[in-house]
Amino acid sequence: MLPDKSEVVDRACRGAWKAWETLADAGTRAGALEALAAGLEAARDEIIRAASEESALTTAELAPEFARMTGTLRQFALVVRDGSWVGAMIDHAGQAGAFGGVVGPSHDIRRVLVPLGPVAVFGASNFPLAYGACGGDTASALAAGCPVIVKEHPAHPRTGRLIVGTARAALRGAGHSEDLLSLVENEDPRDLAPASALVEHPMVRAVGFTGSQRAGLEIARLARERAEPIPAYCEMGSCNPVVVTREAARARGQEVGGQIAESILLRHGQQCTCPGLLIVPAGCGALVEEVAARLKAAEPRAMLATWVRDGYLHRLAECRKARGVETVVHGREGSGQRQAGTCLLRVRAAEFAAQPVLHEEVFGPSVLVVEVRETAEVGGLPLRGALVGSLYGGAGDDGWDSARNRLASMCGRVVFGGVPTGVRVAGAMVHGGPYPATNRPESTACGPMALARWCRPVCLQNAPREALPRELQDGAWQGTRTIDGSVAPGAYA
Amino acid sequence: MLPDKSEVVDRACRGAWKAWETLADAGTRAGALEALAAGLEAARDEIIRAASEESALTTAELAPEFARMTGTLRQFALVVRDGSWVGAMIDHAGQAGAFGGVVGPSHDIRRVLVPLGPVAVFGASNFPLAYGACGGDTASALAAGCPVIVKEHPAHPRTGRLIVGTARAALRGAGHSEDLLSLVENEDPRDLAPASALVEHPMVRAVGFTGSQRAGLEIARLARERAEPIPAYCEMGSCNPVVVTREAARARGQEVGGQIAESILLRHGQQCTCPGLLIVPAGCGALVEEVAARLKAAEPRAMLATWVRDGYLHRLAECRKARGVETVVHGREGSGQRQAGTCLLRVRAAEFAAQPVLHEEVFGPSVLVVEVRETAEVGGLPLRGALVGSLYGGAGDDGWDSARNRLASMCGRVVFGGVPTGVRVAGAMVHGGPYPATNRPESTACGPMALARWCRPVCLQNAPREALPRELQDGAWQGTRTIDGSVAPGAYA
Repeated sequence: MLPDKSEVVDRACRGAWKAWETLADAGTRAGALEALAAGLEAARDEIIRAASEESALTTAELAPEFARMTGTLRQFALVVRDGSWVGAMIDHAGQAGAFGGVVGPSHDIRRVLVPLGPVAVFGASNFPLAYGACGGDTASALAAGCPVIVKEHPAHPRTGRLIVGTARAALRGAGHSEDLLSLVENEDPRDLAPASALVEHPMVRAVGFTGSQRAGLEIARLARERAEPIPAYCEMGSCNPVVVTREAARARGQEVGGQIAESILLRHGQQCTCPGLLIVPAGCGALVEEVAARLKAAEPRAMLATWVRDGYLHRLAECRKARGVETVVHGREGSGQRQAGTCLLRVRAAEFAAQPVLHEEVFGPSVLVVEVRETAEVGGLPLRGALVGSLYGGAGDDGWDSARNRLASMCGRVVFGGVPTGVRVAGAMVHGGPYPATNRPESTACGPMALARWCRPVCLQNAPREALPRELQDGAWQGTRTIDGSVAPGAYA
Repeated sequence: MLPDKSEVVDRACRGAWKAWETLADAGTRAGALEALAAGLEAARDEIIRAASEESALTTAELAPEFARMTGTLRQFALVVRDGSWVGAMIDHAGQAGAFGGVVGPSHDIRRVLVPLGPVAVFGASNFPLAYGACGGDTASALAAGCPVIVKEHPAHPRTGRLIVGTARAALRGAGHSEDLLSLVENEDPRDLAPASALVEHPMVRAVGFTGSQRAGLEIARLARERAEPIPAYCEMGSCNPVVVTREAARARGQEVGGQIAESILLRHGQQCTCPGLLIVPAGCGALVEEVAARLKAAEPRAMLATWVRDGYLHRLAECRKARGVETVVHGREGSGQRQAGTCLLRVRAAEFAAQPVLHEEVFGPSVLVVEVRETAEVGGLPLRGALVGSLYGGAGDDGWDSARNRLASMCGRVVFGGVPTGVRVAGAMVHGGPYPATNRPESTACGPMALARWCRPVCLQNAPREALPRELQDGAWQGTRTIDGSVAPGAYA
């Protein structure tokens, strides 16, 4: 008889809890991340093939994603070896420093980040590698010192099992506990039991989620309603606006339109950074025509899963029924069960503003053109929090300033003169954003700073040397900042 | 006719929203903070007198608190003038840096913290100055560039009105908008309308709360259930453990007992950092006797409010009814309506572990002695997340190591050889901790890093110079770190 689901979850969580202590050493963490990268690279072709078969993404699409997955693991190994991410800070007793006086009693206080404990990772359907079982959430959690239990994604169970199997063998082979990473199976998308059992398990101390808004909010609720609530970092749906000034549309309408269409069509519109709204002043025909022509010419493609296709068609139907919405392009549906075609809808700003159904993401190869009279109107549109917004146009263009301010007020990232797709994995990246793009706009899911999600600070007061980790001992480590009441550069980022 | 409550809230929020733009300049923010400190200092005696009359705290207790309030305002002015808190970071296009390669497309990306917008502040009953209308939450929010609307605390309305009136006059006098700080009245503690109206107002973008767990969770719920959820940082109840090893209790039982009793009696037990549990091995009679004698000798005092007194007595009664709980000291109640006496309860570890009613805070001058057989048993006790824990004893003492690890796993701050009360306001401070001490254990409510709560990062990609704030321009500012894919020291703290 197969073990009960909650037994499987319990075993995985207990294993992770036990393996936790092995991650106390930074060198061990870095070594584990490098072993994972090397192990996965040795199975590269097999992993890409499985992911392609399950997701209907092409091997050409998956090859750079594979490189991003292993590149992220190796990047976090370097972050861990550097070690300064723990933000070690010392205020010696009695030192007033630049703040010109001690406020409160003058204790010796020392602060460092500590890992929260085992992390449950819910990967995305659309990036089976970079946001999969060994994707950014897993890499950042291990880097922070937290073992990971991955909830299998029903859209690509075979890929996930292959990755985790390969990863556990690589960990074992390098002398690590294989329980630093485990997988809880969940082949049936209607079966929510593994997800609840995992989020509710007392040994799980944080959750990373990438997916739909509905599922993300549910995961966040489960995490919050535990006897002991835990943080859940959810990256959810994002309706990303692209604004083009009249000047840019007139001068380079076809070129810009081509770029935007290409961005929409990448992975058949199944990227969290895909353009969702194209906001242009009336009379920018060439640009919109170029986008429309490219979308119309695109072949229907199989989507990530049947339920992804159904969701796409459902949302399109909702939007097309809205008042004042004109269907400019309605591409062929295709014959396969998972296939869907492109779509370009158009609406005037006033009708857009009045109908909330148009403000939410449509996950798939479609875009909604919102026609404004002037670019400055962007400031008044009811745009929702988004991962990323784009602005085409020059600083002198009509309304450029107000569009820029508007995008900065509601997006985690603002792209100038380019498309929103394409995420550089580096320190200055913000892959996050105001609700509903995420439930934690202070965080990023990409880049080294993603590991801050899995930690909390601890302050040790008047501690004897024996109670101090190396990072908090006087002069023991170059990465420690003795601040003594002064400003710690960038400490608050 | 008096205006409707929600109209008052609406007017305050609109005023704050409009004043927001005046905070864009760092020099203006620092100037406003300094003007507030100077204005309050000019009204020092009047403010301390009002606070003493309302809170029943003595002027001797309130004098250092007043200094902490103005010291915090001035400290944040210095943090703002320094400016490095915005964590400006630049990754130039194509620079691989220490991470050994660009992962993802090689865009120029630049990151900086931006303020969330107007912040609603719910101050504490027990620190009418340092956590009041111009306390740490207000100071940190203004420093971050966020105007503040304070919800009046029904325990000290006159003090709050005096502070806000003084503050607004000081702002006006220094040429700032007085709407950077406003107050929403709420004299009746049963009237929850001002709180809801404030948290639900669309122009409020974050909430800072200090108070009871019940109220904090309710505020967090309101913040979460808005159409557009906002972050709520709630510092709530904390049952702070103090552990004494057998060796320390035997060698210095009377001295340590005296320190602990004094810590409990400060402000008549009405501090969030007050010892809640005293965990000692059996047979440490001298220590417990000293604490008991001091508590017994203490005079009854008026508490902060009648409902604070009622809450204290209610919780004491609950705990005294629990199985195996012995009442060692039950101090005189006193005659005044708000008066209450001290209490020392004792229970064995097994009975403590089995009864959750004993695991929560009793807000007032009482302590629960938990008798363990060995200090190492602390590792297995069901201690809840706390702001602070104390450990008396030496590194070689029996069970010291496991007690230290246990406290570090559940507290925001661990104090060695001292009492938990007394918070140094400096960079390395963590005044926060795991649930239920706070709902956001990654944050601190004290010290310069408290301002991180009121910000989120934004990334600007391939931005022209015109779109970059000074901090993100090449070579324009000394506080900016050009990281180019390398590790940014402490960037993840």
